[in-house]
Amino acid sequence: MRTYKLKVVYDGSRYQGWQRQKSTERTIQGILERAVSEVTGRETEINGSGRTDGGVHAKGQTASMVLPGKVEETGFCASLNEALPEDIRVKEMTLVKNGFHARFNAKGKRYEYFIDTREKPDVFTRKYCFHYPYELNIPAMEEAAGYLIGTHDFAGFTDKKDEITTIRTIYDIIIEKQDTKIRMEYYGTGFLYHMVRILTGTLLEVGTGEKRPEEAAAALEAGNREYAGFLAPARGLFLKEVYYNKGR
Amino acid sequence: MRTYKLKVVYDGSRYQGWQRQKSTERTIQGILERAVSEVTGRETEINGSGRTDGGVHAKGQTASMVLPGKVEETGFCASLNEALPEDIRVKEMTLVKNGFHARFNAKGKRYEYFIDTREKPDVFTRKYCFHYPYELNIPAMEEAAGYLIGTHDFAGFTDKKDEITTIRTIYDIIIEKQDTKIRMEYYGTGFLYHMVRILTGTLLEVGTGEKRPEEAAAALEAGNREYAGFLAPARGLFLKEVYYNKGR
Repeated sequence: MRTYKLKVVYDGSRYQGWQRQKSTERTIQGILERAVSEVTGRETEINGSGRTDGGVHAKGQTASMVLPGKVEETGFCASLNEALPEDIRVKEMTLVKNGFHARFNAKGKRYEYFIDTREKPDVFTRKYCFHYPYELNIPAMEEAAGYLIGTHDFAGFTDKKDEITTIRTIYDIIIEKQDTKIRMEYYGTGFLYHMVRILTGTLLEVGTGEKRPEEAAAALEAGNREYAGFLAPARGLFLKEVYYNKGR
Repeated sequence: MRTYKLKVVYDGSRYQGWQRQKSTERTIQGILERAVSEVTGRETEINGSGRTDGGVHAKGQTASMVLPGKVEETGFCASLNEALPEDIRVKEMTLVKNGFHARFNAKGKRYEYFIDTREKPDVFTRKYCFHYPYELNIPAMEEAAGYLIGTHDFAGFTDKKDEITTIRTIYDIIIEKQDTKIRMEYYGTGFLYHMVRILTGTLLEVGTGEKRPEEAAAALEAGNREYAGFLAPARGLFLKEVYYNKGR
């Protein structure tokens, strides 16, 4: 028995998210599992570091799987990519210690969110950013981000109510103007359901002046979804990297 | 009667090219004409500066149309974009002198071609560049480009045999390395059927060393398609801008 770690890149536009579903074949996990079964000839479960929502992209999703024996990684990866549609690619395959699990062993995650602030949406990046044609006050957004960075109860920043704990740590939020686009980066221990998109919606409302920066702090304290901002659409969001302890 | 000039941007991935066809509804011209008819309530012909092939993109295609009377451009443009799919956008609409024709009055055109030289194709730009994972000798390509710039008979650089004249002028060819991508720009009076893609294929063969730079000159002199390089795929090509005389 051998455990492998996979680095997976995907364009989420055509898919209903990571998680395998009975009602649809259009999930990343379902398609990856089918591709592995095609290559190995046996059913294999693939565990992602987390479940990205429908339409969310990944530049560096991580997944783990257990195969009955050792395989030649480069060749296996190439066969896997041949069996996969061109908008899902396995970039790396690494033999790891048995017991490794992409979700349970994840120590941190980095997400990116892209905003297109042009008056008209850019035709060529329309699936990879949120078109939000408003002048944004970046210093005000950075001030609000300052309140969100750190270890907090993010109960007000999720749309799922049954988490064991809603306490998370955000190490950093970067807001960067790139010509007519804005790139936001979120780095933390992990994120709740919809959390990055609600953080983004909240910061955007601060950017337009609809909310004052302190209202981000108030939304944290209130722990109430009503106080946070809108749910920014999936298309602008990328899972950029998943971190593990060394040697994993 | 009023004549309007349109600047049109499109992602050509889903379409069978510019030109209206009876056999398919998936043409840019056909869809634009239908959108204008929806807005005006009458059939309208739209003339492009040229016919881009299936899969070719445009950042600045130009088209002309005649409407029975004056319209308010901003509002008309907005209605047009509402009637259009999101991968075709009318960016500008300008009232021009009657008699203006986007194709017959065009004085020059600029095209861009993008190459992805990474080992594995980039998931997020796969529809907008040609994946060609080879080390390219840019100085050799520039030397070959030097032979192609100028006024020449490009009979060897087209796949259509019945042109009135195959003489064209290329003002400039720029070859630029951008990280793992290569951008090629072609600026000239006009280009024959498949010409930009054959020029690109020729320069790429020089880049890999399959052809010597002087063979580009030999292909020009021979006037024979066999001597020029392969037809680079449509997905990497963008019509960037069309030029007219001032006041047009």
